[in-house]
Amino acid sequence: LDEFALIRRHFARPASGIVTLGIGDDAALLQPPEDCETVVACDTLVAGRHFAGDADPADIGWKALNVNLSDLAAMGAEADAFLLALTLPEADEDWLAAFAGGLREAADAGGVCLAGGDTTRGPLTITITAIGHLPRNSALRRDGARDGDLLAVTGTLGDAGAALAGHADAELQRRLHRPRARLEAGRVLRGLARAAIDVSDGLLADVGHICRASRVGAAVRADRLPASEALAALAVPEEHRLAWQCGAGDDYELAVAISPQALDAAQAACLDIGVPLSVIGRFVVGERARLFDAEGKEYNGITNGYSHF
Amino acid sequence: LDEFALIRRHFARPASGIVTLGIGDDAALLQPPEDCETVVACDTLVAGRHFAGDADPADIGWKALNVNLSDLAAMGAEADAFLLALTLPEADEDWLAAFAGGLREAADAGGVCLAGGDTTRGPLTITITAIGHLPRNSALRRDGARDGDLLAVTGTLGDAGAALAGHADAELQRRLHRPRARLEAGRVLRGLARAAIDVSDGLLADVGHICRASRVGAAVRADRLPASEALAALAVPEEHRLAWQCGAGDDYELAVAISPQALDAAQAACLDIGVPLSVIGRFVVGERARLFDAEGKEYNGITNGYSHF
Repeated sequence: LDEFALIRRHFARPASGIVTLGIGDDAALLQPPEDCETVVACDTLVAGRHFAGDADPADIGWKALNVNLSDLAAMGAEADAFLLALTLPEADEDWLAAFAGGLREAADAGGVCLAGGDTTRGPLTITITAIGHLPRNSALRRDGARDGDLLAVTGTLGDAGAALAGHADAELQRRLHRPRARLEAGRVLRGLARAAIDVSDGLLADVGHICRASRVGAAVRADRLPASEALAALAVPEEHRLAWQCGAGDDYELAVAISPQALDAAQAACLDIGVPLSVIGRFVVGERARLFDAEGKEYNGITNGYSHF
Repeated sequence: LDEFALIRRHFARPASGIVTLGIGDDAALLQPPEDCETVVACDTLVAGRHFAGDADPADIGWKALNVNLSDLAAMGAEADAFLLALTLPEADEDWLAAFAGGLREAADAGGVCLAGGDTTRGPLTITITAIGHLPRNSALRRDGARDGDLLAVTGTLGDAGAALAGHADAELQRRLHRPRARLEAGRVLRGLARAAIDVSDGLLADVGHICRASRVGAAVRADRLPASEALAALAVPEEHRLAWQCGAGDDYELAVAISPQALDAAQAACLDIGVPLSVIGRFVVGERARLFDAEGKEYNGITNGYSHF
């Protein structure tokens, strides 16, 4: 059994867009438009760490691609293609078919094509390399935030954390298992935001990455954090909700730095594509992200994000 | 401990060449020259399958990069950068320092820079994505061979197979553990060869990939297979030597299809960079690669290459 052939069968369409040579050669070829930069990112999901070994393989396929597309979204990039490196303990055709199905759904939703990859035998591990492009010098980097910029976030925070904590609500579970990379929001914020990151490790940790790269601090307002109806409906202590919103990660929203002058345009652009953009704080002189209540009192003990080890 | 920070310390030089943004953002940015295509490939090495768990970590780092650069070489590409997705069972600083050292050596030898990646906790697995570029429409694909073309191979075959079979000669062991991607040969053969592949799975299997993609057959001459002095010096039965040369793989030489008219120029170009290019057969009407002796009698039972499962 050739696993990659099976996966490929689920990707009936040949190379498309800027991909000039796809699966089946030593490497894939891409032809970015004139005056563009190529954008590449890779992330690994390990069974038993990033997902349960017995999780729905369609969800695993969907999520594996979206966490990588989310990195392209955070740069403001157009997503083009991806490479799949799949390590599998055994040849299980049912599992593979379901995995490939979820992966293809995600590829269709993200407008990307499978351009190549590798299958190997070993403990279940999925590494995806996402490839995109954007006009030269237009990337939303982490190092562009300035003291005085506003901190804003797309969508809502905390659903994935609540789901991971065991709340069975279908909408919360969907956010955890079927995150959707904010590719459109990243694109419309290109040229409007000064810095961006995707919320994967946890809001405070991720905003902290912008702080370190930009040599600023951030003051996050707990009372401004956007919550979904599903999350707001949970009868849980505030510190649980805050921990999920600020520390749990896995939301795959975009956190951006925006100059006060650009805020109206950024919110209008996001509204146009149906994505709320909420101001949740401000970049300040400092060196890390801190959480405050409406009266300016700092929260302590709210986890600073998912640590990979 | 942040493993990626440790690895990064071994790559002191910042982003260079066409890499405009390296490690430390959501994604890396590359700026290929005008009228070029981007070339990307990824391969995974799994502990216990592609290398022994207790192998020298410097060798693992070297080889993990070179097997990926070899895919770029087989396209005739210029190698620019790579992403490292490293899954590790535990934080072992000595192991990591040695691994990163071997990886950096390989990066320096190949002229590529580390542009990003991911570290995760789990069973030891290394996925590298290699990124390069080449002038538009100049790639050495697998599908360009024609009936009547010559089959040629760079360097020598079989050393890695002999080493894997237990022969302790230092030169043989070096070929197995420290393969060097034929990047220069790939580049000089661009425009001269009609098709190329790197010999990773085994000569007959890999030439078979060219055959399938090009819809031709190949007749390989056993008596023409180039052997190193170290391999020739081994007192072993012919079928062992042939199995290593034709089936063992891991040689990372390039096998190419060349029109008879282009042979002199191709051999001269390879000679200029000190790489022998030996004609070992011919592409013919057919659909797979077959091995013959000098009298035209076919060999049977020579393994057709490394099967990933």
